[in-house]
Amino acid sequence: MKRSIEIFDSTLRDGSQGEGISFSVQDKLNIVRTLDDFGVRYIEAGNPGSNPKDLSFFRELKQLSLKNATVCAFGSTARSNVPVGEDANIRSLLEAGTPAVAIFGKSWDLHVTEILRIPLDENLRIIRQTVAYLKQQGKEVIFDAEHFFDGFSANRDYALSALQAAAEGGADVLCLCDTNGGTLPDGISTVVKTVTEHFPELRVGIHCHDDIGCAVAGSMAAVAAGAVQVQGTFVGFGERCGNADLSTILANLTFKCGMDCGADLSRLKATARRIAEISNVRVRSNHPYIGKSAFAHKGGMHIDGVQKLSSSFEHIDPASVGNERKFLLSEVSGKSTVLPRLQKFFPELTKQSPQVAAITEELKERECAGYQYEGADASFELLVRKSLGLLTPHFRVIMYKALDDFPAPDGEQQSNAMVKIEVDGQTELTCGSGNGPVNALDNALRQAIRVFYPRIDTMHLLDYKVRVIDTGSATDAKVRVLIESADGDSVFTTIGVSTDIIEASFTALADSFEYILSKKEN
Amino acid sequence: MKRSIEIFDSTLRDGSQGEGISFSVQDKLNIVRTLDDFGVRYIEAGNPGSNPKDLSFFRELKQLSLKNATVCAFGSTARSNVPVGEDANIRSLLEAGTPAVAIFGKSWDLHVTEILRIPLDENLRIIRQTVAYLKQQGKEVIFDAEHFFDGFSANRDYALSALQAAAEGGADVLCLCDTNGGTLPDGISTVVKTVTEHFPELRVGIHCHDDIGCAVAGSMAAVAAGAVQVQGTFVGFGERCGNADLSTILANLTFKCGMDCGADLSRLKATARRIAEISNVRVRSNHPYIGKSAFAHKGGMHIDGVQKLSSSFEHIDPASVGNERKFLLSEVSGKSTVLPRLQKFFPELTKQSPQVAAITEELKERECAGYQYEGADASFELLVRKSLGLLTPHFRVIMYKALDDFPAPDGEQQSNAMVKIEVDGQTELTCGSGNGPVNALDNALRQAIRVFYPRIDTMHLLDYKVRVIDTGSATDAKVRVLIESADGDSVFTTIGVSTDIIEASFTALADSFEYILSKKEN
Repeated sequence: MKRSIEIFDSTLRDGSQGEGISFSVQDKLNIVRTLDDFGVRYIEAGNPGSNPKDLSFFRELKQLSLKNATVCAFGSTARSNVPVGEDANIRSLLEAGTPAVAIFGKSWDLHVTEILRIPLDENLRIIRQTVAYLKQQGKEVIFDAEHFFDGFSANRDYALSALQAAAEGGADVLCLCDTNGGTLPDGISTVVKTVTEHFPELRVGIHCHDDIGCAVAGSMAAVAAGAVQVQGTFVGFGERCGNADLSTILANLTFKCGMDCGADLSRLKATARRIAEISNVRVRSNHPYIGKSAFAHKGGMHIDGVQKLSSSFEHIDPASVGNERKFLLSEVSGKSTVLPRLQKFFPELTKQSPQVAAITEELKERECAGYQYEGADASFELLVRKSLGLLTPHFRVIMYKALDDFPAPDGEQQSNAMVKIEVDGQTELTCGSGNGPVNALDNALRQAIRVFYPRIDTMHLLDYKVRVIDTGSATDAKVRVLIESADGDSVFTTIGVSTDIIEASFTALADSFEYILSKKEN
Repeated sequence: MKRSIEIFDSTLRDGSQGEGISFSVQDKLNIVRTLDDFGVRYIEAGNPGSNPKDLSFFRELKQLSLKNATVCAFGSTARSNVPVGEDANIRSLLEAGTPAVAIFGKSWDLHVTEILRIPLDENLRIIRQTVAYLKQQGKEVIFDAEHFFDGFSANRDYALSALQAAAEGGADVLCLCDTNGGTLPDGISTVVKTVTEHFPELRVGIHCHDDIGCAVAGSMAAVAAGAVQVQGTFVGFGERCGNADLSTILANLTFKCGMDCGADLSRLKATARRIAEISNVRVRSNHPYIGKSAFAHKGGMHIDGVQKLSSSFEHIDPASVGNERKFLLSEVSGKSTVLPRLQKFFPELTKQSPQVAAITEELKERECAGYQYEGADASFELLVRKSLGLLTPHFRVIMYKALDDFPAPDGEQQSNAMVKIEVDGQTELTCGSGNGPVNALDNALRQAIRVFYPRIDTMHLLDYKVRVIDTGSATDAKVRVLIESADGDSVFTTIGVSTDIIEASFTALADSFEYILSKKEN
């Protein structure tokens, strides 16, 4: 039978400590639903004592019926000078009304004497009594031993006695936290082994941070050493360098260790992206398993190899985590890179087709000029269709002018543009203004095209990127502009390159309009 | 004595396989200089056989005199059907003229039979003869055993016999590559131990990819098992999920394992950022050691703890890697972050100086608007001097206009600009043209200023960078422009932010002229 591992997500608690992260009540409810749907076992929902917004969230949370997850509130052990039941923090924990609570306590003697500034024994008493009190209230109690690994290395006996106090209080899980994130996986392994031997009857958890880039490996090492619960955040963000990345750990435990995490891995990418979207965080393109380049091949030999046998350059099937394979185009690439991308649009083409050699040649020339089609699918398709004689342009740009005026005339915008296009012998001259020249050109061009093709109104721009290609030549360097646009469900990217940023932007803009018009015809 | 580890950087070779990465010859030379300055032992400069642009780079590379690094060219073993010395790829490797070469060969039997489609013994002969031939030519030879870990697990004996063939050919280093990136650190450890026992007289290297988020830990595990060379890329980018991140590994080996990597770690952050800048890659804010949030504290208890005792929530001193502590969400912290930066220019300022509070406030507002002074020292200095009443501007811009005309009139440039400035009550109106509006404005402004201050002629622009800040709002998003200028030995950077790229560029341009004029006075 497969070994089972409990996944404990702290996106709403530790994740919210990441720089730039801030959740509304609605965001939090959406994240809880998403994690529960996916099959996460515990969801740490926040610290009800820390702010009043959290209390209203916990009230709404009680109305949700969850399929898989147990919700957990987070707080510290009681203060030293009041009875546990009268501690304000403990009372809000109980008011939160969650079936489980995570209680963090000190296990590093230095922190007890220098930060809490109480006697070492007093800290043990607080741990024991806090846990016992919460057990009496019917809670499942997870004891988070803060700084456990630093504590263990500074004073092994004291660190273990903190766990012993929690065990005596009746804790269900002893979770070992590498709070400062500086412990190597080998060190984690040794300590977890010691703890599982000392407390064979209790579940042991692991909570890593990524300050030395080893949070995933550290969590894996802990599981190999006997831990049964892994704490982290789904996309890895959190205080400083972030928490252990659960999306990677889940996939590793499932595919590399044959363990059962209770989740449907084929929805891994979609789940992580949804959480990232709610959190307003970007999933980096090279993120293991879930990034858009996680299975992207650029080297000619790699592409050739994957085409012969996918396992030759892929450690797992991208579909098993809901991702997909991708071939990138680059200077090094030859026909074999270009071909599969051509075949997407024109399945009848082969390596021997004369058009393939011609397009490969044209691509090389354009890449030499600074074009890079790997991220610009729509411009690539237009180029290919043109090359194959399959594109009749919907409009021709006769001229455009963009004028920037500083200071702007009173109450007016400082950028104005004029565009003239021709369709079937008929010309149209329009103008537009904006808060920058590209915005003004976008408005002017859109108006001109609308006269002939009212359907372009459903398209809108999503994203605009500028990159200086040859930075060495300062203000007369070439720039590359990428524009991402959306039309209903379809999202696509176009590209323009020039020494003139206005021209580069206009080229990408015009491509995006042409692309959407040619799409709507098919 | 400290154990020494050789750092082998493949940013220019494997790093260039990352999605969106593309280097000009100038970029490559700059990266080589940066890595050499920092103290990297080997720099893998590229594959001279793969494209003609690389050959011209290798020609220029020969002119550089390096202090620390050995440059290495990369290529595959010879083809099966020609004598090694006549293989085109081997010939370009030799033409590259580097003291070291890295040769990759197959060590996974599956790849020999399914991808190369040659007999297993034939592959061994090719490895042996290729290495031997390159040794005869006086090269240091690093043998990259591709897919070594998958190969070892599929057919242990064959994988070892591939290394044996390289050893017989005279290889100096046997580098074990986890090409598909799917091997756990434990697995890497076991295999590296076996190899170091089999080849006690040879140096063993490790080359990991981050497909399971364990490339750093895998490389560390290999070193613990006896590897002496670590291959990776400085900021971690590369094919698919990227290569092992050398910036993290260097810091881990130095601070966590007490080893010597031959580099000055206090320049780690600056070096990584410079490479990222040249590569036009963003260093993610939570990147271990070098990210801007790597030592950022948000939780109130963490901030309190760090103020009492920094080691309570920091695994190392941020300064040891050239980074700095940051408190988020804290008024007091504002001043304490800004102060050291102010003191650089005005050592007499203290936390109590009333100007410090005012400047902190202004900086906060500007940073909120998208300014980021970290990389724009000259604009920062101007802002502070203005705030302190120490700056009398040398010129005032009354107006400017920039006009882009497409198509350009016959034989003329398509961008023209007009600038009017005032100096001591006297105005000057000039115009200029260029191959883009920023270039035209630069020419016009320079002419106008020259009328009053002929000395600005010694200044020239080095570098121009554009970043869209708020990508969500497409063509009306804000852009940040950075301009790097030089005047004699001094190199400095200015910044401009606006929704209008022309305005952002002009702001940065005007700052660079003002900065140099105020410098020349002192």
